[in-house]
Amino acid sequence: MKEFEFINQIKDKFNLQKIGDDCAVLPKNKTHDMLITSDLIVEDIDFRRNWMVPYFLGHKALTVSLSDIAAMGGTPLYSMLSIGIPEDVWKTDFVDEFYQGYLNLANNFSVELIGGDVSKTPDKIVIDSTVIGEVEKGEAKMRSSAQMGDLIYVTGQLGGASAGLKLLEKGVKFKDSKAWQKSLISKQLTPFPCLDVTSKLASLITSMIDISDGLSSDLGHICQASQVGAKIFADKIPLHKNLKNITKDFSEQLNFALNGGEDFEILFTINPKKKIQKNLDHFFCIGEITANIGNIELIDREKTTVLQPKGYQHF
Amino acid sequence: MKEFEFINQIKDKFNLQKIGDDCAVLPKNKTHDMLITSDLIVEDIDFRRNWMVPYFLGHKALTVSLSDIAAMGGTPLYSMLSIGIPEDVWKTDFVDEFYQGYLNLANNFSVELIGGDVSKTPDKIVIDSTVIGEVEKGEAKMRSSAQMGDLIYVTGQLGGASAGLKLLEKGVKFKDSKAWQKSLISKQLTPFPCLDVTSKLASLITSMIDISDGLSSDLGHICQASQVGAKIFADKIPLHKNLKNITKDFSEQLNFALNGGEDFEILFTINPKKKIQKNLDHFFCIGEITANIGNIELIDREKTTVLQPKGYQHF
Repeated sequence: MKEFEFINQIKDKFNLQKIGDDCAVLPKNKTHDMLITSDLIVEDIDFRRNWMVPYFLGHKALTVSLSDIAAMGGTPLYSMLSIGIPEDVWKTDFVDEFYQGYLNLANNFSVELIGGDVSKTPDKIVIDSTVIGEVEKGEAKMRSSAQMGDLIYVTGQLGGASAGLKLLEKGVKFKDSKAWQKSLISKQLTPFPCLDVTSKLASLITSMIDISDGLSSDLGHICQASQVGAKIFADKIPLHKNLKNITKDFSEQLNFALNGGEDFEILFTINPKKKIQKNLDHFFCIGEITANIGNIELIDREKTTVLQPKGYQHF
Repeated sequence: MKEFEFINQIKDKFNLQKIGDDCAVLPKNKTHDMLITSDLIVEDIDFRRNWMVPYFLGHKALTVSLSDIAAMGGTPLYSMLSIGIPEDVWKTDFVDEFYQGYLNLANNFSVELIGGDVSKTPDKIVIDSTVIGEVEKGEAKMRSSAQMGDLIYVTGQLGGASAGLKLLEKGVKFKDSKAWQKSLISKQLTPFPCLDVTSKLASLITSMIDISDGLSSDLGHICQASQVGAKIFADKIPLHKNLKNITKDFSEQLNFALNGGEDFEILFTINPKKKIQKNLDHFFCIGEITANIGNIELIDREKTTVLQPKGYQHF
């Protein structure tokens, strides 16, 4: 069974209604709801120790969860960090540098680390990153509220993080790399969360998700949760500017953008009747929501294909 | 460096004032504060797969965090569960049984699972258990507010969980074991959180902690946080009734109770001026708080020794 099937099964069996979006939304007070999200990051699954300086790993551990808060239209406030470390790593300055990277990013966004846990592990580093935020009452942007006819936007260029991963897998070291390689590897190692980029659009946005698994999968999550379909245009998908140095083949470049994960850009849909051009200048309209439930059509010049979700899956 | 020293160093360096108690306390609304706690549980560090049926592991993963909510005088409301699993385990019914154990205990206490993460790991199971609760505004029971002259209580018998661990380490299997062995192994494998046991005493309690590392360490945490000392009486410490089957030697029995962790009983201090005998009948008074900062004296008949914190430490 795949992990999303399993999660849906548990969700149905135990009637767990708050599971299934980027964050859980909880009642907080009269004016605000609370948001909370956790992300597990495991050595040799999500990163390799010899690719990653500890400072960057700390930075990325927080980014992945801040990105989930961003994807609900929220403001992050607090964080919890659980870290498991092998004894030999504990004896180095790894943990100190890791926390430096984590806490410097936290300070950047006025996020306060309030707790967590430190444990020993037999051999691998493991991190669980939790962020708590808030959003105006009833204003959390869910995956489940896209409507037929909505326009689909992304906040930035795609495919850079997975192209950076490919370079790391080939043995390219950040410090010895060329400028275009550095720009791709940075997208993989030190992504930034798109907090606030959509805040001025709040009233237009009908649904939202962060692109962590990959555009094809994450747009698929929106379609499934909203019981809609989508069509997207190959020539409108913003490709990372340095993908051309990895491959000249457009379909391979497109593959990075569609199916490579971890770009941590935001995918959102807007109600076209409320569209105000000036607010949307910095974003990329890649297509629109259709009534073709669960189906994503990719339109490449004259040719239309049904896009399969090929983003990241653990199981 | 030890883990508590490291945490204190990070706390001071980055001015992280909410770290250091069983839960972090956050502002929620006009009437309540929010409580949140996370516990990392790692295979071959905190449990062994061949000792633990998955159902029990799910139960225990939730108990450890519910116990932290109990130790603040709070009510648990929601939980998050992050679990990392090797691919071979994913293919078995492990995860299903694990969630059954977790969610049945959650239902028991009306706790709703609202999120978390599922990830693959290279070889070991790892769990991060987060519980969110609430407490009346300003009423969270901290470690830092014990006063000289306060009486020290524990909610139940101690040493059972670590004696149960000793049996498991010797190869005793739960299903083939004698009744007294089952009672000890159960304390290790399926502890229950002491929720609500102290709720009627709220106005009396000056400080509180759960006994997860071991009495000597956890009383040490209270003393350090409150800048006080303590004296406790060996003959007043409630020993698990089946410790006598493990060893006839009183000092060895006492060692299980003082330094064995994971009993998940609660240690609390009360203001003796507010003592109401009838409310305290079910608890065990083991000593009192002194002005001897950071020192715990153990009084065994005529002999007084200074107790060293010998509870569980990861590093």
